[in-house]
Amino acid sequence: MALPVSPLAPKSYPDLPAIAGVRFATAEAGIKYKNRTDVLLCAFDEGTVVAGVLTRSKCPSAAVDWCRDRLGAGKARGLLVNSGNANAFTGMKGRTSVTASATYVAEALGCPTDEIFLASTGVIGEPLDPLKFAGVTKEMSSRLVSTPWMGPAKAIMTTDTFPKLATASVEFDGVPVSISGIAKGSGMIAPDMATMLSFIFTDAPIDGKVLQGLLQPQIDKSFNSITVDSDTSTSDTCLVFATGKAAISPITSASDPRVEVFAEALGDVLHELAVLVVRDGEGATKLVTVCVEGAESDRSAFRVAQSIANSPLVKTAIAGEDANWGRVVMAVGKAGEPADRDRLSIAFGEITVARNGERAPGYDEVATSAYMKNQELEIRVGLGLGAGSATIYTCDLTHGYITINGDYRS
Amino acid sequence: MALPVSPLAPKSYPDLPAIAGVRFATAEAGIKYKNRTDVLLCAFDEGTVVAGVLTRSKCPSAAVDWCRDRLGAGKARGLLVNSGNANAFTGMKGRTSVTASATYVAEALGCPTDEIFLASTGVIGEPLDPLKFAGVTKEMSSRLVSTPWMGPAKAIMTTDTFPKLATASVEFDGVPVSISGIAKGSGMIAPDMATMLSFIFTDAPIDGKVLQGLLQPQIDKSFNSITVDSDTSTSDTCLVFATGKAAISPITSASDPRVEVFAEALGDVLHELAVLVVRDGEGATKLVTVCVEGAESDRSAFRVAQSIANSPLVKTAIAGEDANWGRVVMAVGKAGEPADRDRLSIAFGEITVARNGERAPGYDEVATSAYMKNQELEIRVGLGLGAGSATIYTCDLTHGYITINGDYRS
Repeated sequence: MALPVSPLAPKSYPDLPAIAGVRFATAEAGIKYKNRTDVLLCAFDEGTVVAGVLTRSKCPSAAVDWCRDRLGAGKARGLLVNSGNANAFTGMKGRTSVTASATYVAEALGCPTDEIFLASTGVIGEPLDPLKFAGVTKEMSSRLVSTPWMGPAKAIMTTDTFPKLATASVEFDGVPVSISGIAKGSGMIAPDMATMLSFIFTDAPIDGKVLQGLLQPQIDKSFNSITVDSDTSTSDTCLVFATGKAAISPITSASDPRVEVFAEALGDVLHELAVLVVRDGEGATKLVTVCVEGAESDRSAFRVAQSIANSPLVKTAIAGEDANWGRVVMAVGKAGEPADRDRLSIAFGEITVARNGERAPGYDEVATSAYMKNQELEIRVGLGLGAGSATIYTCDLTHGYITINGDYRS
Repeated sequence: MALPVSPLAPKSYPDLPAIAGVRFATAEAGIKYKNRTDVLLCAFDEGTVVAGVLTRSKCPSAAVDWCRDRLGAGKARGLLVNSGNANAFTGMKGRTSVTASATYVAEALGCPTDEIFLASTGVIGEPLDPLKFAGVTKEMSSRLVSTPWMGPAKAIMTTDTFPKLATASVEFDGVPVSISGIAKGSGMIAPDMATMLSFIFTDAPIDGKVLQGLLQPQIDKSFNSITVDSDTSTSDTCLVFATGKAAISPITSASDPRVEVFAEALGDVLHELAVLVVRDGEGATKLVTVCVEGAESDRSAFRVAQSIANSPLVKTAIAGEDANWGRVVMAVGKAGEPADRDRLSIAFGEITVARNGERAPGYDEVATSAYMKNQELEIRVGLGLGAGSATIYTCDLTHGYITINGDYRS
């Protein structure tokens, strides 16, 4: 099925620079799709470290299990990603498949199998034949390049309607350090561990454990702060590869002052990719930022924001451009978090619609309805209890979502 | 908006008997709807006791607050229910409104204000003018009747497409005791405290505290075991009124052997009403029973069943008659409850589709797809960990839900 490009798609794509020590190739392995690339192979120079965050699903894919077992060692020489089949819930066949796939890649790249990372996305429950990779890995390894990144970004797409790329750079002692990333994701997106798949590449010389330590807080503010449909993938994977090629002294300690600067730049890339995933949310026509303030804690604010951002009634009202703030009240009320109805205030953008537990004095239905016609909306909720706050990005729930997920066999 | 009647509507409605000590009238108060009844007044003979379960929402309606404050005393002489306006999130105006409304009813029926119960359903955030009731309560009190119950069942409807009635009777020492109920609900339905509104009437002579004690477990198996859209109403109210008119010796203790028999019959009525609410789920075309077995506890099984029953991806797959059991795997995985992927089994009806963490040997796609065309479906999940089980009733997620909640201003 060819889906129309999301109306929320960016108007242009960034031109990602080459990352020293990273080369890649894509190919058509014919896993599910016809006439499009569905495999990405990345090769990393010796000395590359890896950090990652994986799905918390109790039914993770075989590739997720494979990566989890190897993240601790922190060394990476290769990455193989396929779209079209998630290799999830495939039992022993799945485990055999990942081992074989990693072996093919290791042979092609001439490195240890345990330094190969794998990610798969697509249909769940269908065995993934590793022979599909046997035919292409060797050939791909013979034509590795370092640009353009559009190829990798497209090869990992499933129901995505546009590729997702982001880049940032920081300077240490006058030497630039690059951070670039790609992501895929459109449905089965909930803020509970990364998104579906995202891969970040940097030439920073940084210790693997330091990298792992700074990653989780950045994920929490990006991929864990988005939701399309409240459903969490079995394949969620975010991996960061650092080749160490930039000519600066190595970052070996979490207390190095450069860590904060690097983490912030990495966070920017992750955040940009995360919001792109929401912009490509299945059927999305509106990008919605839900900000909750005044909660008893940040965690509590996050749960209230989740309740709003996941509510089908809130999301359908937004789709209908209906300033139905009563449904926001409902979603706050059902969150199960500390809330005092009579202190609650709600704003749509700059328009306060409710205050102190009732409709705001002078509430202007016409102005509020006009605001709802915007493509990007903000729902602000003040609980009036404390200093906890959180922001979650979501989209509306439209006929498009039903069509994509209900009208086709997938 | 006139919605088409749900395809899952029952073919006929039960003829509820008169309950001694209960009389009622309905009227058009013009609260929101035109040309249809929107108010129900019930009068109870002296000696009537009441028990109830109310929403756990932190933003309950003014009527919910009113009832909560008066349930402890356990005495009831009147009930006023309106549709079209929930009187929720209406601040001090809401509190003034319920006090005035109860006063009008108490004057009309000649009884204490504190023995009047109230329930409102409809739009949130709109002040409810109690003068609407001033004009009709006195007049209604002059034409109270004890049948037919179709009038009350219709007066409390909002987006419901059919009225919901159920009845049961038990015999103690050869004397029949009746239990009859009505309910309304279609959207904003989640298994977290009753449904939107349900009122049960019985002539059983039963102590109010005994009635309250037996009610909660029955609610948990009925209204708390359904979900349409995972959204919880600010107005959820289930009240049971017992007039004590049946000529049997009073049930005054929870250890009375008749309690279990009565509770089971009450549970049957609640269960029937709860499933009718799912059958009228907004946009529903399929009634789905989700059974989870083999969990570490009943509570854990319930949470896994909730995760499946609330998953937009599971519900859209069902709408599309797609035997996409991979999405059931996803929903089990995201529930956060103990689960072992490699012991998991899934069946659609009698067809086992997955076993021991992978597709079942001999899985027949054609037979499974044929099963998905049924109007009533069963998803059975075995976790293989313990003896915990739970059953939740839900419906599919269709274009109809989006149309009802997103295409109209409500």
